[in-house]
Amino acid sequence: MASLLRPTTWGLFSWRGYCSRGTQGRLSAGFVEALKAVVGSPHVSTAAVVREQHGHDESMHRCQPPDAVVWPQDAEQVGRLAALCYGQGVPIVPFGTGTGLEGGVCAVQGGVCINLTRMDRILELNPEDFSVVVEPGVTRKALNAHLRDRGLWFPVDPGADASLCGMAATGASGTNSVRYGTMRDNVLNLEVVLPSGQRLHTAGRGRRFRKSAAGYNLTGLFVGSEGTLGLITAATLRLHPVPEATVAATCAFPTVQAAVESTVHILQAAVPVARIEFLDEVMMDACNRHSKLNCCVAPTLFLEFHGSEQALAEQVERTEEIIRHNGGSHFSWAKEAEERSRLWAARHNAWYASLALRPGCKGYSTDVCVPISRLPEILVQTKEDLEAWRLTGTIVGHVGDGNFHCILLVDPEDPEELLRVQAFAEQLGRRALALHGTCTGEHGIGLGKRQLLLEEVGAVGVETMRRLKATLDPRGLMNPGKVL
Amino acid sequence: MASLLRPTTWGLFSWRGYCSRGTQGRLSAGFVEALKAVVGSPHVSTAAVVREQHGHDESMHRCQPPDAVVWPQDAEQVGRLAALCYGQGVPIVPFGTGTGLEGGVCAVQGGVCINLTRMDRILELNPEDFSVVVEPGVTRKALNAHLRDRGLWFPVDPGADASLCGMAATGASGTNSVRYGTMRDNVLNLEVVLPSGQRLHTAGRGRRFRKSAAGYNLTGLFVGSEGTLGLITAATLRLHPVPEATVAATCAFPTVQAAVESTVHILQAAVPVARIEFLDEVMMDACNRHSKLNCCVAPTLFLEFHGSEQALAEQVERTEEIIRHNGGSHFSWAKEAEERSRLWAARHNAWYASLALRPGCKGYSTDVCVPISRLPEILVQTKEDLEAWRLTGTIVGHVGDGNFHCILLVDPEDPEELLRVQAFAEQLGRRALALHGTCTGEHGIGLGKRQLLLEEVGAVGVETMRRLKATLDPRGLMNPGKVL
Repeated sequence: MASLLRPTTWGLFSWRGYCSRGTQGRLSAGFVEALKAVVGSPHVSTAAVVREQHGHDESMHRCQPPDAVVWPQDAEQVGRLAALCYGQGVPIVPFGTGTGLEGGVCAVQGGVCINLTRMDRILELNPEDFSVVVEPGVTRKALNAHLRDRGLWFPVDPGADASLCGMAATGASGTNSVRYGTMRDNVLNLEVVLPSGQRLHTAGRGRRFRKSAAGYNLTGLFVGSEGTLGLITAATLRLHPVPEATVAATCAFPTVQAAVESTVHILQAAVPVARIEFLDEVMMDACNRHSKLNCCVAPTLFLEFHGSEQALAEQVERTEEIIRHNGGSHFSWAKEAEERSRLWAARHNAWYASLALRPGCKGYSTDVCVPISRLPEILVQTKEDLEAWRLTGTIVGHVGDGNFHCILLVDPEDPEELLRVQAFAEQLGRRALALHGTCTGEHGIGLGKRQLLLEEVGAVGVETMRRLKATLDPRGLMNPGKVL
Repeated sequence: MASLLRPTTWGLFSWRGYCSRGTQGRLSAGFVEALKAVVGSPHVSTAAVVREQHGHDESMHRCQPPDAVVWPQDAEQVGRLAALCYGQGVPIVPFGTGTGLEGGVCAVQGGVCINLTRMDRILELNPEDFSVVVEPGVTRKALNAHLRDRGLWFPVDPGADASLCGMAATGASGTNSVRYGTMRDNVLNLEVVLPSGQRLHTAGRGRRFRKSAAGYNLTGLFVGSEGTLGLITAATLRLHPVPEATVAATCAFPTVQAAVESTVHILQAAVPVARIEFLDEVMMDACNRHSKLNCCVAPTLFLEFHGSEQALAEQVERTEEIIRHNGGSHFSWAKEAEERSRLWAARHNAWYASLALRPGCKGYSTDVCVPISRLPEILVQTKEDLEAWRLTGTIVGHVGDGNFHCILLVDPEDPEELLRVQAFAEQLGRRALALHGTCTGEHGIGLGKRQLLLEEVGAVGVETMRRLKATLDPRGLMNPGKVL
């Protein structure tokens, strides 16, 4: 059965088109009835089309549908579902918005997909304490819309309108993290349903303090665990005051090195930059075409500053000085909301701009992160590798964190090109490891990077993770096949 | 034997004076020889005076000496020591500067104390990447002295000149955390010797990236584990640029409420305050006397701002406006280094200033942390409780984080007063829990707060922690009796 389920695995990833067949009916009718008894008949589906919708995320990993999909309404139902599945040895796969990029929702062993999007309440908002409690169906944009008139916002922004609990599960970050941190820094507490069905509050029920030294950091353990230790059914998040004013800018550089050195100098000068994003000339060209910009086709930084009017003026002045000193030019400052939105929409549409370079192709994004001083080296290597492997790819990155993505364009009908993409991505992962970096800054390990994880944290590291996993999920049924 | 070792345990803590006797000689001569074979004869001691020096920290917990003290020179020796002790069923207690406040180094089951202070090298400094690797003997002040001319610093400042790896083990924070975060936010990687003697690099050997989504967050699990999961033998820390300019200030308030509301408004206005510390009028009076200040005897905020000259001017202006609006007065701004040092020395000497209020008495510090909106309520309650329990205590706190300390003055010869202190501290811990807070913001659980930890995280939380502990330390020999 296992080999039937993986007819076309390509190591790092496998192509979505090859949906597995024949897993339907692996769950007994009695078991499906038991699921219905928990959530109600209309909230369970075993229809092929529904299962296939839930068998993949936005990555190139092959669709691997679950045997059934259920939509619980609250954490109590999630607990009963988990206990039911676990007791019967049925794999459990948590599902949010399906916007992941590492195959985290692929049901590699079938089982029950628990779609949490109908639990979409904002349970508690404490503006004075800068905290909010959300159910797993609340997305980043929905939360920020809710907060709009309260002078608060949640800044972690991976691009997609992902669910916040899904972002916690993945350890997401994105463009604002250089200033506001990642999900690891902004989750205060989690409600988790353990495989047994028991409910765990990682920092204690109802707790929403800013810091604590009370026992082991369970919150930190579940953030980034990719659904392999339990199901997140609520998250308490740290909010931030909306900045009084915002300025965005773009700026061109003669070389990658000059753009990165500017970034280091800006950080060293303690300019509290809110976003600092790098786009290589191929990416910039694609964005110009796709989003009707007319930026210089050169290595480019997109920047954003948050603060008071007066503080911004000074930040902008210092940044310009540093950038000019490093040979930057073609500044374009955007102060009005509309102009800024246009710039950042262009940045956020980098994926689609890249896809438009080779119509009919699919995209695959790498996600390495290195110490910032090693960025110029690895960026230059990456561009050489693209050429050596005869691949088309754009580069865009959260340069302030040392994290960048190479978006590769692949013809899904060309298995030989798929192999080259895989080889390129593995080589890039190993290059990052050789430079003291990580194979994934924010997308997670999922299905495709398990070998790289071993190389990254070593045998003792992976063995320690395995022991933790076995402790919390002794039957290995929580999102099996992911991470480890 | 266990009862012999705990003749005077007072629940929350026990008084240091009652040293245990008769544990000497529990280790066979052969075992002591084996320790010497690992680290060399001069680096092992079983002398009573040395053991007693290592049997307590700065808290009121009773001295409980280990059976032997060893000083390894490197991680390889630590690994051999751990394997040796573990194999023989001998408890292992890691020891840094001994500046903890919750009895974390008390050898409640005897065993071998591993004093790590002779491993005191700064192994690697990467200024461009804002990171440094330190051995466990490197203290906070030693690191900052080393960094002085490089435009970088490590901001986490618990007051004591603690070892940085000890601070990681405790999950320390302190006065700068409102701006720069706690140890949880500033540790990038740890080298840990596991009980088996194996060496684990929590983020992978040599890795020093700013963020990652690769597997479980082992770094976060070991930060704050209080030596109960392994021995930290190196830490990779995140550094920050030294601010261009610094301004400090004090300001008096008519009420506790007014001081706390000012804090909330300052944070809501996104003023990037670097420190914001609250002192009640008793504490302020004590500081005036002890440190020759002449501040108003009233609820007071001590503030510090970091930034460019221009940014500071604006931050100061906004803060003054907010504070005046809340009824604050008696501003005193300190711009020169000497004047600032005098103010912050007074704040850091709060402990000694408190002790001077009742000569001959000892101090005990509580450490609760609540959502900031609940601070006025709990501060008022705490002052009433002090009166009700007929205790002398000062209040000082990291108000921007919701964390405060009540420093209680206790006559060590008065067991009845000790009981009242214990009852007061437990009541305060429960008050914090009732307000969605934690029993410890930064000192840790150690020996005295295990019952409060259970009430804080619940049975499932403690059971989950126990299972994690049993996985990494199946024989229960790593710093036994602490946390759980």
